[in-house]
Amino acid sequence: MKYIIFGGDGFCGWPTSLHLAAIGHEILIVDNLSRRKIDDKLNSNSLTKITSPEERVKVAQKIVGDISFVELDISTEPDRLRKLIRNFQPDVVVQFAEQRAAPYSMLGDSERRYTVDNNISGTHNICSALIDEMPSCHLIHLGTMGVYGYSKAFGAIPEGYLNVKINETKKDVDILYPANPGSVYHLTKCLDQLIFQFYAKNWGLRITDLHQGIVWGVNTDQTIKDEALVNRFDYDGIYGTVLNRFLSQAANGFPLSVYGTGGQSRAFIHISDTARCIELASKSTQYSEGNVQIYNQVSEVKSVLDLAKIVSEKFGVEYELIQNPRNELAHNELQVSNYGLRSLGFEPITLSDGLLEDVKTIASCTSERFLRENVLTSPKWR
Amino acid sequence: MKYIIFGGDGFCGWPTSLHLAAIGHEILIVDNLSRRKIDDKLNSNSLTKITSPEERVKVAQKIVGDISFVELDISTEPDRLRKLIRNFQPDVVVQFAEQRAAPYSMLGDSERRYTVDNNISGTHNICSALIDEMPSCHLIHLGTMGVYGYSKAFGAIPEGYLNVKINETKKDVDILYPANPGSVYHLTKCLDQLIFQFYAKNWGLRITDLHQGIVWGVNTDQTIKDEALVNRFDYDGIYGTVLNRFLSQAANGFPLSVYGTGGQSRAFIHISDTARCIELASKSTQYSEGNVQIYNQVSEVKSVLDLAKIVSEKFGVEYELIQNPRNELAHNELQVSNYGLRSLGFEPITLSDGLLEDVKTIASCTSERFLRENVLTSPKWR
Repeated sequence: MKYIIFGGDGFCGWPTSLHLAAIGHEILIVDNLSRRKIDDKLNSNSLTKITSPEERVKVAQKIVGDISFVELDISTEPDRLRKLIRNFQPDVVVQFAEQRAAPYSMLGDSERRYTVDNNISGTHNICSALIDEMPSCHLIHLGTMGVYGYSKAFGAIPEGYLNVKINETKKDVDILYPANPGSVYHLTKCLDQLIFQFYAKNWGLRITDLHQGIVWGVNTDQTIKDEALVNRFDYDGIYGTVLNRFLSQAANGFPLSVYGTGGQSRAFIHISDTARCIELASKSTQYSEGNVQIYNQVSEVKSVLDLAKIVSEKFGVEYELIQNPRNELAHNELQVSNYGLRSLGFEPITLSDGLLEDVKTIASCTSERFLRENVLTSPKWR
Repeated sequence: MKYIIFGGDGFCGWPTSLHLAAIGHEILIVDNLSRRKIDDKLNSNSLTKITSPEERVKVAQKIVGDISFVELDISTEPDRLRKLIRNFQPDVVVQFAEQRAAPYSMLGDSERRYTVDNNISGTHNICSALIDEMPSCHLIHLGTMGVYGYSKAFGAIPEGYLNVKINETKKDVDILYPANPGSVYHLTKCLDQLIFQFYAKNWGLRITDLHQGIVWGVNTDQTIKDEALVNRFDYDGIYGTVLNRFLSQAANGFPLSVYGTGGQSRAFIHISDTARCIELASKSTQYSEGNVQIYNQVSEVKSVLDLAKIVSEKFGVEYELIQNPRNELAHNELQVSNYGLRSLGFEPITLSDGLLEDVKTIASCTSERFLRENVLTSPKWR
């Protein structure tokens, strides 16, 4: 099949592109390279030494499969986007090209605006182009578990839709799970859901929204094939996800920084599973026209403190509780359904399986790439 | 009090600006004049002969009250917007500056994109600027009854929030009414609601969202004071609202064009009441921090066929049923709460009160400004 991977140069997009190419698909990566540019702006860096998009695509084309790359900004170049879809005629497009960090979206006015403008216009431009240029194409979007919020008010977290009784009419209905975002970034993923709902309803566009947990890890079977294919690894307070921050601290012999009490329960998934789940979602036949198919793309639930303890014990480093910059519950319980992807064959990698391999990679990165002052750069939420 | 009226040159914004100035407030109109520019693009026109923004503001300043005008695009000039808020220090800002026509938003790719980009970036830019520059300011936004959709699935339409029982936990909760937009335009108003929810929750921004019915009429006590103050009157298939289209057809002796069966029930409000409701909302003390205050800004419910019959009888013209270009239910019942604004003192003008006065104005417009071919220009929804 022919895939366009929007944001295919990024942390999730790159290994997904490699995985899909490796199993025989034709991949076109479309990326505006904004993540690389933000590194310059924030003085942050990937702990692994990633190669240029041209270089990594050249090597992938040689040893992995059919991958090409176009630099294009889907939010500001809608006409080029339309032409590209018309010419390439994708069977599936995967939308990873959203600004993906909650802390980045809370830095200030320009970052709030960039996150909203880039994410909403970009995702909407894809939908609007598809209904005219390739209405049979399947759009797969990376959402986030954060759209649900983490309050216990609504019970265990189902997959996208919540069954409620309307008290006035006494009728039971499934509604889109009431949005409760915790940052401007999460807000944009909630807005996306409504865009998808309308495009599916009015034009029958086929859409799968994957509400992903917090991704950890760095390598996949493909990224380790050649130095030039290595995936990026963020460990800073803005783009580093919590477990990856812990792993980089552990690998460099520093105590783990736990926000608040560490009582926040979250759902996690390994980067290799992200790539596999996209494959499963695009092969799925679970679909009814007019309805967005929503899956929770998660492997397991842990509290932040549990994570810290696991890493601490395994690698012999301490952890310390620090003031939480975020505006979130100090403690929450979390129960998440991931029945949908499991029914498609998803067998998650759990923390215990993957931890050691990934830390070896991280530890082998020269210590001069680890900038300790970058670990605690998260802005305060208010 | 000091008000900024975003979109203050438009159909609702202009009479609201005049009304608030007339009762002693200081008004700054901010508008990008896009509605006037769209007229050029669509070959459409106001049936009334509106003067330039500079001219009408000059006359208003002389005979109505303290009004000034700045041309500025809030969606593409966020830095100028911030400076303006910092310098003017408004007590209230009213957001009318969204592309407001459902048919326009369904014309094609560029109109879909303009509606999303302009409305979402514009509204979000206001929120993002306010929390930094004027966090005590009250933001009043014009939403639409269309966010609720018109299905009977959830019973009578409450004001913003719906009481449901979560079937898993058996708990009763109020949730934001599940969005069910009928066009890209309506979709943007649903997206706005989530932006407001997050800005109210995280930063305590005070926000009132007014879900307005379909506006009809043209004049208010202020717009009739001088020829130069006349309000715009749209009668075309893109920007003309249904009753105004009927009135212009009646005034020009043509049969009324009813979409589909006319069984669509909708909520209506007169343009004078729009202005008064903004005043009531800005004086209201019904507000709890962290929650968006939502009112339904409507006067009465009628079916489209009822409207046609009233106008037909009053003015002796026929009506005809034509194919419905929209994707909507052929028939729906509608029951809408407007308790909130009534509790603040709102006494609606009903159809029978205002109809004759408005039609006199419309009939007095020279018939050469009425372009019959513009009445049925609505695009098909799919």
